[in-house]
Amino acid sequence: MLVNGISGNMISIRDRGLLYGDGVFRTLCISNGQPQHWPLHYQKLQNDCAALGIVCPDGLSDELAVLVAAHPDAVVKIIVTRGQNIRGYTPAFDVIPAHIWDVTALPVYPSGYENQGVVVRLCELRLGHQPQLAGIKHLNRLENVLAAAELAGTEAQEGLLLDAEGLVIEGVRSNLFLFSQGRLITPSLSRCGVAGVQRDRVMAGAAKLGMPIDVRNVELAELFCADELFLTNSVFGLWPVAQLEQQHWTDFSRTSKIRAVLELK
Amino acid sequence: MLVNGISGNMISIRDRGLLYGDGVFRTLCISNGQPQHWPLHYQKLQNDCAALGIVCPDGLSDELAVLVAAHPDAVVKIIVTRGQNIRGYTPAFDVIPAHIWDVTALPVYPSGYENQGVVVRLCELRLGHQPQLAGIKHLNRLENVLAAAELAGTEAQEGLLLDAEGLVIEGVRSNLFLFSQGRLITPSLSRCGVAGVQRDRVMAGAAKLGMPIDVRNVELAELFCADELFLTNSVFGLWPVAQLEQQHWTDFSRTSKIRAVLELK
Repeated sequence: MLVNGISGNMISIRDRGLLYGDGVFRTLCISNGQPQHWPLHYQKLQNDCAALGIVCPDGLSDELAVLVAAHPDAVVKIIVTRGQNIRGYTPAFDVIPAHIWDVTALPVYPSGYENQGVVVRLCELRLGHQPQLAGIKHLNRLENVLAAAELAGTEAQEGLLLDAEGLVIEGVRSNLFLFSQGRLITPSLSRCGVAGVQRDRVMAGAAKLGMPIDVRNVELAELFCADELFLTNSVFGLWPVAQLEQQHWTDFSRTSKIRAVLELK
Repeated sequence: MLVNGISGNMISIRDRGLLYGDGVFRTLCISNGQPQHWPLHYQKLQNDCAALGIVCPDGLSDELAVLVAAHPDAVVKIIVTRGQNIRGYTPAFDVIPAHIWDVTALPVYPSGYENQGVVVRLCELRLGHQPQLAGIKHLNRLENVLAAAELAGTEAQEGLLLDAEGLVIEGVRSNLFLFSQGRLITPSLSRCGVAGVQRDRVMAGAAKLGMPIDVRNVELAELFCADELFLTNSVFGLWPVAQLEQQHWTDFSRTSKIRAVLELK
């Protein structure tokens, strides 16, 4: 673990990341000594910092290289916060951002999740709309925490999140895609949700395959009529959906084409 | 500064307060060796913890007493987080909450703020609706950070926040009241906003004075027609509003009655 470039696992209690969730993060895998899609993650991290007016620190790629050398197969998380507070919500113009790396073991999921698909449950929590924060992977994640808590004790591997209007947005920790009427569709994230790196990769991959792609509002009813559904994130990669509430799917042929073009490990 | 009962100013980078803003806080004054309205703050802290399913730690009053003895005039902040993470959003059932005390100097405001009132500017940021988090003083405060940043470089001492529907909710760091047609009115916080301790005290004080009180939806236009407006929080106490955008107020006679019954220092 590195805090501001120095080995350590503690941060000031006056860091605005703690006080206000005033920061952003990304999570990615290191596999066989290679950080997976770091340039894409770094670009998103920079974009998200810019959206909040945080100056993204230099030298992150060099620090990551040090971590990769020590941990050739791991999950790595990078957090950038606005830095330490003077007082109150107003960010000081000269505040120095903090950056934190954490490394944990690669999770081991049953192989069935990837091959036979996962069970998804509809969460009761509805995502609030906040266009100024939509798409950003920021540290204000209480909605995800409350939604994840709903899944505890159920057989679901992931929760489905709707917004306050009942539109489909994403999974608790993943982005969602559906195949319907020959098109690949993913919900618009202009009012809430987190735009993951794998989401971009899926869209680029589908374009390469010549698949028509729509990013638009998605009604819940559309999911139940969809030919296939799948979820993506940067740790588990891609999971087909075998079950959403009482609806089941067994044909993942279209999803498999996406998986192949993503070249997931 | 105390972290989990021990003198210190650092917290684990795996604390869920940092990772997800998964915690709550209160800020209060210590004045002449007395914590101001601690029982009310403690009750709100416990309620907010319960709303997030966090077990509020025992012994906070004893720890506060130690801080008060060392800092008879100060601002004190208590943060309770869900504690350290194993992995991901799902809270572990056996996670041990963390609690953090921070002490800073009492801010000195120009006496005019209290007597002649403050300038308030309408923020562009609109608060998103999230009924499951509304009213709670949780650590997901990016909306307040973005709104506060709008005020930098302006002459305003506070920003006014509307919700996505254009209804009046609160100040960036305060609750708002208005006097109109013989009634004291404060916006409903059922869909967004933070319910402060001073807000409750104002309502109790107004009831004592026999003033009729409404907690309801408030339109922006109502503020411009109001007889008086005022703001409350637990650090600055009560500030009348002298100016909101282009509208000015100079009669604070009704507000003064509220101030008197609050027995602010």
